[in-house]
Amino acid sequence: MKVIGSMGKPTEKTDISAKKTILKRIARNVSVSEGERAIEDIIRCIYRNQPISTKKIGQYVKLPLPIVSKVRTILEREGLLKRGERGAIFSKEGIDFVETQLGLKLKSDLKCPVCSGGNIVFDEKFEKILKRHENYAKLRPQVNTMIDQSFATPETAVKRACIMADRGDLEGKRVLFIGDDDLASIPTAMTKLCKEVVVLDIDERLLNLILEVSKKENLNIKTIHWDFKNELPKELHEKFDTVFTDPPYTLNGAVLFMSRGIEALGNDGVLYLAFSHKPVEEYIELQKSINNMNFLIYELIPGFNFYEGTEIIGNTTFLARLIGKNLKKIEVDFKKIYTGELKPTLRYYRCMKCEKIHEVGDKIKRIEELTCECGGKKFSMVKRLKVKENTELNNY
Amino acid sequence: MKVIGSMGKPTEKTDISAKKTILKRIARNVSVSEGERAIEDIIRCIYRNQPISTKKIGQYVKLPLPIVSKVRTILEREGLLKRGERGAIFSKEGIDFVETQLGLKLKSDLKCPVCSGGNIVFDEKFEKILKRHENYAKLRPQVNTMIDQSFATPETAVKRACIMADRGDLEGKRVLFIGDDDLASIPTAMTKLCKEVVVLDIDERLLNLILEVSKKENLNIKTIHWDFKNELPKELHEKFDTVFTDPPYTLNGAVLFMSRGIEALGNDGVLYLAFSHKPVEEYIELQKSINNMNFLIYELIPGFNFYEGTEIIGNTTFLARLIGKNLKKIEVDFKKIYTGELKPTLRYYRCMKCEKIHEVGDKIKRIEELTCECGGKKFSMVKRLKVKENTELNNY
Repeated sequence: MKVIGSMGKPTEKTDISAKKTILKRIARNVSVSEGERAIEDIIRCIYRNQPISTKKIGQYVKLPLPIVSKVRTILEREGLLKRGERGAIFSKEGIDFVETQLGLKLKSDLKCPVCSGGNIVFDEKFEKILKRHENYAKLRPQVNTMIDQSFATPETAVKRACIMADRGDLEGKRVLFIGDDDLASIPTAMTKLCKEVVVLDIDERLLNLILEVSKKENLNIKTIHWDFKNELPKELHEKFDTVFTDPPYTLNGAVLFMSRGIEALGNDGVLYLAFSHKPVEEYIELQKSINNMNFLIYELIPGFNFYEGTEIIGNTTFLARLIGKNLKKIEVDFKKIYTGELKPTLRYYRCMKCEKIHEVGDKIKRIEELTCECGGKKFSMVKRLKVKENTELNNY
Repeated sequence: MKVIGSMGKPTEKTDISAKKTILKRIARNVSVSEGERAIEDIIRCIYRNQPISTKKIGQYVKLPLPIVSKVRTILEREGLLKRGERGAIFSKEGIDFVETQLGLKLKSDLKCPVCSGGNIVFDEKFEKILKRHENYAKLRPQVNTMIDQSFATPETAVKRACIMADRGDLEGKRVLFIGDDDLASIPTAMTKLCKEVVVLDIDERLLNLILEVSKKENLNIKTIHWDFKNELPKELHEKFDTVFTDPPYTLNGAVLFMSRGIEALGNDGVLYLAFSHKPVEEYIELQKSINNMNFLIYELIPGFNFYEGTEIIGNTTFLARLIGKNLKKIEVDFKKIYTGELKPTLRYYRCMKCEKIHEVGDKIKRIEELTCECGGKKFSMVKRLKVKENTELNNY
C-alpha cells in the first residue's frame, strides 16, 4: 500500500466505537430494529429543525411515533433534550454532545423547498385540481382499519396524478387503480390525459363516492367492486398501461396487489407502488420480490406520500415507479395479507372525555365500534401491543 | 364481476395495438432493447420540449445518442419531424400523430425547476464550494477510457457532496471514495463536515491532483493508489461510515467496487452508487446483486449525475443511496470489470483537419494515442462497433 498524504495515524476504530456505544445503548433501550442509525437520525432531525414536534420527527425519520417518543424521553432524562413550548429542543449539554460526540454541524436541511423531493411542481391546472379535490376528499367515509385503510391527504393524491403525468404514464394511457382508498383516481381523471381510468376496490362505500364525483365532474371513471384475493376479471387482463397501488403494508399484501397489477398490465408496463418504510431486512425482501416479478425499481422517493390520522407509521410512505418487462406473478399466502392477520395487534385508547382506557383489537375489533360508558366518542391512542411478540413498539 | 359506472363497452385492446404497431415498427428498425417504450419516451420528450437538440433528448430519455439520432431520422423521413434551427420540432402531421394516435397533451414538464429531482438545493456555502471546485476541475488530466473514466461535471460533484450532507452521511463520518475520477472528494472535504475523507484510485494522475488541491485548501484528504482487483488494505477494513463509488459500467464492475465498499464499511453503513441506466433486464440483475449483498435501495434518483464529453451514454447516470445491514460481499470475475473487457469496441474517428477516418480499439487502443498523418490531433467520433455482436448501437 502506497499511502500518499498525511495518513500518518491510521483511521482509528476507537472513537467511532465510543460514539456508537451511546447510540447503541439508547437503541437497545428502545428496541428499534434499525439500531443506532435510527437514534442518530432522530438526533440529527431535532438538531436541524429544533424546536420540532414528535409527529414531525416521525415524518422526517420515517419511524413509528412510539419509538421517536421513547428516544425523546431518554434524551430528556439524560439532560440532553428539553421539552420546549414548540417541541423538542437540545439543552446546552445536548448541543455539546451532538456537536462534539456526533460531529453534527449542519444547522438546517438542504432539501428542496419547492418540490420536497418528488421532482414535480403543480402548474395552474394541478393547483385547480387540488382545490376541487380537497372538497371531495372531505366526503370520505370513516377508515376501515381491518383492511389497512388509511387515507392519503388530498395533496398526496394530486401529487400522485402529477408525477404520473410528468413521467408520461397518463397521456393516452389506460390506468388502473388496484384499490383506491386514497381517491387518487379522481385527480388522475381530472387531468383529462388518460384514455381510461378504472378503479377496483373491496369497499363499496369508496366506489360509490368515486362514482358520484365522477358523474358530477364528468370524469368517466369506471369502478368495479373486487376482492383482490380473486384473480382480476378476465376482461381486464392485459388491458392497461399504468397501475397504481397502495396495498396493505405486509409483504404478502404488496406482492398480491402487484401480481393483480401484472394481470392488468400483461407482459410489460409501469406500476406505481406506495408502501411503508419497513425495517431494512423486510424492505430488502420486498425489493427482491419486486425484482423477481421482473419489475425494475426505476425511481424511488422516500416519504412521498402523507396520510391523515396514521401517526403510528410516521405518517409517510415511499413511492416507487416500477418498470416491468416480461412480467410474472408470484403466488402468496392469502391468510397474511392485512397487517391484522399477520400481527394481531391490541391497541389501547384513552377516552378524551373521562380518560378511561379501552382495549381494541380483540373483543372490540375496530376503534370505530368503540363508545365509552361515559358517552365519549373521541379517543386518543396510548399504546399498541403486538400479540405473540416481545416488542411492543416495532409493530407497524 | 359487478361493474359500476359506464363500463358498457369493454376496454379494447385494438387501439392500444394500433398505436403500438407504429412504435414497434420504429423500435425494431432501431433495434433498441427497451422497445416501444424508448420510442414513446423520445417522442414525448420532443413534444414537451421542442425545439430540442439530440443531446438534450438523450439526457432526458437516458438513452444512447445514436439511438435518439436514428429515431429522429426515421421520424423525419416519415414527415412527422422537422429539423429546425434549434433542434427537432414536430411538423403539422407530426403534431396530429402524437396527439391523436399517442394521446399526448401535456405541452411542458411538471419537473421541479429548483432541484431537478435530487431534492437538494445549494445554500450559500455550497455555492461557494462550487465556485472554488470549478477551477480545480479544469486541472483534470485527459480521461483514460480504457478504465471507463469519464468526468462528472463540477456541479455534479458538488451535488453529490450536498446530497450526502443533507442525508446525514457526512457529519462526523469517515467517508471513502472507491475511485474518484470525478473529484467529488474535493467538494466533500470542502464541506468540513467529515471526520475523514479517503480516496482510493488506480490513476495516480488524479490522486496527485486531489492531493495538490487538498494541500492548497487544507482539506486533509488522504489518497491511496489502489487497484480494486485487490482486497482493500486491511487498515481500511470496517473503518468507514459512508462510501461513494461511480464504478465501471458493467455488472461485475459495480459488484466488485461495492464489495470493496463493504470491506470498508464492515457490517453496516451507507453506500452511494452512481451507475448508468441499463436496459431493463441488466438493470434488474444489478438490483438483485445489490439486495443480495444486503443493501437496501433506500432512494433512487434517475439522471442525477451529468458527465462531460460522454454523449454516448446519454450523459447521465442515476444515483442510489443504499443502506446496508449485515453486509456480505459477492465474488466476481475479474476479467469482466471494464466495458472494454466485456465488449471489445471498435470506434471510428474522423480527423477534424483532413477528414480521414481512423479505427481505435484494436491496434490503437485509445483515442488519446491517435495522431493523424496530416498532423491533426482533433477527432470526432463517427461510429462505434461492438465486436462479436450484431448491433452497433446498444453497446453502452
